[in-house]
Amino acid sequence: MRISELSTATGVSVPTIKYYLRERLLPEGERSAPTQAAYGERHVQRLRVIRALVASGVSIAEIRRVVSALDDPPSEPHELLGTAHAAVTPVVDPPLDTTEASRLVEGLGWQPGMCDDAVLQAVAFALKGIADAAFSVRDDVMPVYLRAMRDIADAEIAGVPLDSAEEAVRYVVLGSVLVEPLLLALRRVAQQVGSAERFAGAGAE
Amino acid sequence: MRISELSTATGVSVPTIKYYLRERLLPEGERSAPTQAAYGERHVQRLRVIRALVASGVSIAEIRRVVSALDDPPSEPHELLGTAHAAVTPVVDPPLDTTEASRLVEGLGWQPGMCDDAVLQAVAFALKGIADAAFSVRDDVMPVYLRAMRDIADAEIAGVPLDSAEEAVRYVVLGSVLVEPLLLALRRVAQQVGSAERFAGAGAE
Repeated sequence: MRISELSTATGVSVPTIKYYLRERLLPEGERSAPTQAAYGERHVQRLRVIRALVASGVSIAEIRRVVSALDDPPSEPHELLGTAHAAVTPVVDPPLDTTEASRLVEGLGWQPGMCDDAVLQAVAFALKGIADAAFSVRDDVMPVYLRAMRDIADAEIAGVPLDSAEEAVRYVVLGSVLVEPLLLALRRVAQQVGSAERFAGAGAE
Repeated sequence: MRISELSTATGVSVPTIKYYLRERLLPEGERSAPTQAAYGERHVQRLRVIRALVASGVSIAEIRRVVSALDDPPSEPHELLGTAHAAVTPVVDPPLDTTEASRLVEGLGWQPGMCDDAVLQAVAFALKGIADAAFSVRDDVMPVYLRAMRDIADAEIAGVPLDSAEEAVRYVVLGSVLVEPLLLALRRVAQQVGSAERFAGAGAE
């Protein structure tokens, strides 16, 4: 199909499609004439992924890394997560001391060498944000966080499709990024439900 | 203390402090002379909170709503979460249909009227992002998300300090916003730990 048809099929405007082409988020179409290119189902799918990531607040630079992971997936299952997370985890610069973060993630079953430094840095960065605001997570709450996140990760890892590397990286990359807003929104609903039950009687306005 | 001393005490530059004053994130100091104002411990604390929220990627407009909730806390415990979440939940415009979101959050114990429309809209928005990318959460994973988020919320709600409204709103607002990056980072570490255990043997690089 031509770029105008790709636009109609996806609801993405032609100037926006051209922008994604220039930013190398979308692969070039096949040249059908000197000034014309042909686009296919692959471009429709890719545009859907890009739009969902943009709507989730993922930056153009991060989306470029995500689609590059989709285009060139690692062949080993245990490399998938590293690639996926590297695509979407901001670099903490300068790097933080990870002593406290390492001690914390031992509660997840972590041992040295089991995860990328980038995600450990992300834990350290989050802990720093909490400490900088003179806030703290209660000692009886932190173990619940660790247990909940390990339960979630186990369920997710059990579902990684292993028959196709492309499917696997798609599952891991999109699952990482797109599920985050869902989890955070569910936490807020659960907090309001718990609060309503505790303070206002179940079912109260 | 003078603005230069406030800057030294907090490590925030004088121009940045002046910017926060103009943006009404930081309350005015007490006028000590026509061109001078005196700042106190309250300003130091508030600057810490602002810096932590900025570092967490919270927008200036959202921070203004957060500090306004801190300055004028609701008196009823069950209103706290609504106020806190309203401060930090983006408005979905135009509003989405919440039929699917409502059905999903029944798994959290939700009943009609138990939570603000804004957080239900946030669930609907997250589900739309997932669907738009032609992704889906597996049927065996979604119940794990619901259980984990309910466990987290129950532990958090049990810890809300009820002796002071200001402490309570601080706990709820900061707990909502500052804990989110920690949960997401812990999920990524847990995924890599689970992946290492499953695919590469425990403790493997």
